Amino acid sequence: MSDTKVYQASTTAPVNIAVVKYWGKRDAKLNLPTNSSISVTLSQNDLRTHTTASCSPTFTEDSLLLNGSPQDISNARTQACFRELRSLRSALEDSDSSLPKLSSYPLRIISENNFPTAAGLASSAAGFAALVRAIANLYELQSNPTELSRIARQGSGSACRSLFGGYVAWEMGQKEDGSDSVAVEVAPASHWPNMRALILVVSAEKKGVSSTSGMQITVATSKLFKQRAENVVPEHMKEMEWAIKEKDFEGFAKVTMMDSNSFHATCLDTFPPIFYLNDVSRAAIRAVEDINNAAGKTVAAYTFDAGPNAVIYFEEENLGLVAGALKSVLGGVDGWNGKDVESKSAEHIDERAQKVLKDGVSRVILTGVGGGPEKTEKHLSA
Amino acid sequence: MSDTKVYQASTTAPVNIAVVKYWGKRDAKLNLPTNSSISVTLSQNDLRTHTTASCSPTFTEDSLLLNGSPQDISNARTQACFRELRSLRSALEDSDSSLPKLSSYPLRIISENNFPTAAGLASSAAGFAALVRAIANLYELQSNPTELSRIARQGSGSACRSLFGGYVAWEMGQKEDGSDSVAVEVAPASHWPNMRALILVVSAEKKGVSSTSGMQITVATSKLFKQRAENVVPEHMKEMEWAIKEKDFEGFAKVTMMDSNSFHATCLDTFPPIFYLNDVSRAAIRAVEDINNAAGKTVAAYTFDAGPNAVIYFEEENLGLVAGALKSVLGGVDGWNGKDVESKSAEHIDERAQKVLKDGVSRVILTGVGGGPEKTEKHLSA
Repeated sequence: MSDTKVYQASTTAPVNIAVVKYWGKRDAKLNLPTNSSISVTLSQNDLRTHTTASCSPTFTEDSLLLNGSPQDISNARTQACFRELRSLRSALEDSDSSLPKLSSYPLRIISENNFPTAAGLASSAAGFAALVRAIANLYELQSNPTELSRIARQGSGSACRSLFGGYVAWEMGQKEDGSDSVAVEVAPASHWPNMRALILVVSAEKKGVSSTSGMQITVATSKLFKQRAENVVPEHMKEMEWAIKEKDFEGFAKVTMMDSNSFHATCLDTFPPIFYLNDVSRAAIRAVEDINNAAGKTVAAYTFDAGPNAVIYFEEENLGLVAGALKSVLGGVDGWNGKDVESKSAEHIDERAQKVLKDGVSRVILTGVGGGPEKTEKHLSA
Repeated sequence: MSDTKVYQASTTAPVNIAVVKYWGKRDAKLNLPTNSSISVTLSQNDLRTHTTASCSPTFTEDSLLLNGSPQDISNARTQACFRELRSLRSALEDSDSSLPKLSSYPLRIISENNFPTAAGLASSAAGFAALVRAIANLYELQSNPTELSRIARQGSGSACRSLFGGYVAWEMGQKEDGSDSVAVEVAPASHWPNMRALILVVSAEKKGVSSTSGMQITVATSKLFKQRAENVVPEHMKEMEWAIKEKDFEGFAKVTMMDSNSFHATCLDTFPPIFYLNDVSRAAIRAVEDINNAAGKTVAAYTFDAGPNAVIYFEEENLGLVAGALKSVLGGVDGWNGKDVESKSAEHIDERAQKVLKDGVSRVILTGVGGGPEKTEKHLSA
């Protein structure tokens, strides 16, 4: 009697945006970072990957479909995730012979993002977190999120942080095999639930240097990078963990902005230099500075990943001061529908910065801190 | 019998553009830097300040006229230069009672630049070098350029390097009184006479943060700055002195570009961040990278001071590869007249960079390495 059943499990997983940045690998194969990092997990209402993992002896080979397109899975990163998860399943099967031998069946992964991939948002974090979580569900692994984060990290470094909701640290670890380079919860979303994020999606000129190759060149050529990895980030990590525990927005904001600047400074110090910030990014920085100056305190914090998009963090009670002012500048672009934001005066924002933002921002995404991956019975099919 | 004579002397002085940058003061009053620097003195045919210093007991007060406009001379910097020069003259007068008592007469300084001040070129270096050199001539001081550089430094830090032609180092010095923070010649222009410089003057958006206040904020807030001042610059100084002595353009170029990037990285790491480079500057960097890649070796080097203008160094034999290619992109702007440059293909320069340069560069200045201040009998009058 042969097993012809199709086993399946589904999950959603969130995007995260770092406030202390990951940049630099000490081991490229294992995706081990040169420094720890901290991120905020964003709400899956606005940004999430939905993934269904299935397996069956009737399938002929492993496959991955993302937004309807077949993906190459022969790369070492995806293979590492499959291998590690199969190995955990195999151990379960060895200890209980009544379990079906799922570890030996080909895997079929189907994934969909609820946000435009053209937005230039790092979707690989949510993607690999969902892939690992979905297969772990399929295999009925008892591994906790930190254990799974070790696997997701091998798919995409920052994916390890998307296995938790709220405020999440990726501890760089010390071991050569990477077993202690994992994500841990700093605080759940419920601890500081009123954190909001407004993403200004900048009309892409052209894809810049990929973060994988960019960070390798930085490590190899920047003479300032070591100072960042060894001294600046450890200080920022301590300050950020404290700010999150105390819900001290001004502390959170200052470290967020300084760490983003420090990261981009090491990119500029790379040879040849890497530029992710452009004139639109600079205008977003100026707008945040002007909003904070007008408020007489720090109510907004900018941060930039490996691209020109600005992510602006603020607390819900300052929605008007931050998102309201920016809506009056950017009211014409997509993304405000269904969000309860009233335009507020933006007269304190530098006029030139307003013009550059109007010309350069193609859409906004207004969201906030959210929870980790969620199991769902809604299964995707090809 | 009273002296009613007007004594006068005139000089010209050059602009210099650093290839290892000065950024950061360890003593703001004395203009003592946190690191040494090296510059190339540019030809006075294209960029110079012409200054006449006169004094007479019939004058009522010290005055300074720049390009026809009276300047405020009550600032501590100008006063320091006047005071130091008068003190040297006074010592001469004490040792020889036959000398007229010029040190007690009011000074009248008249200065003119041969380049548009709107170009955003740091004119204070040439201005203070000319002021100090002209008064030293007027006072018939026997001080050598290094001795005068100690005085010019107090007017404007980088002015000390404009007292020499060719390749000039400003040694940061160690003494508290700044007496060893002076300029010295690394090599005269004749040692490496074929060094050329093409300046791309970028249409100014708005004056950025002044370098005086900018560098103070960097020293106070950048967590990467100390690494630059203490480790990166000393390494660049050694490499640059070696490259100049060996006339090794590739070495010269690499340090020039990396040092400019390192300096601007510490500006970005300042809080709030300081941006001098804009999208036009980035396009100039891209064009230089594309020119070098197409040449199969480094034939051009970019550097940026505290503003968006690009200065591109190259050797005369590569005029076509560098200036020729850029002329075909920027043939429409002012500055090419009277320069023997033939447009060459620019098809290897990124199309987007070409467009950004066309839209953003308002004029070019093509010049080269040149000599130091020159005494002239051409006196300016109000």
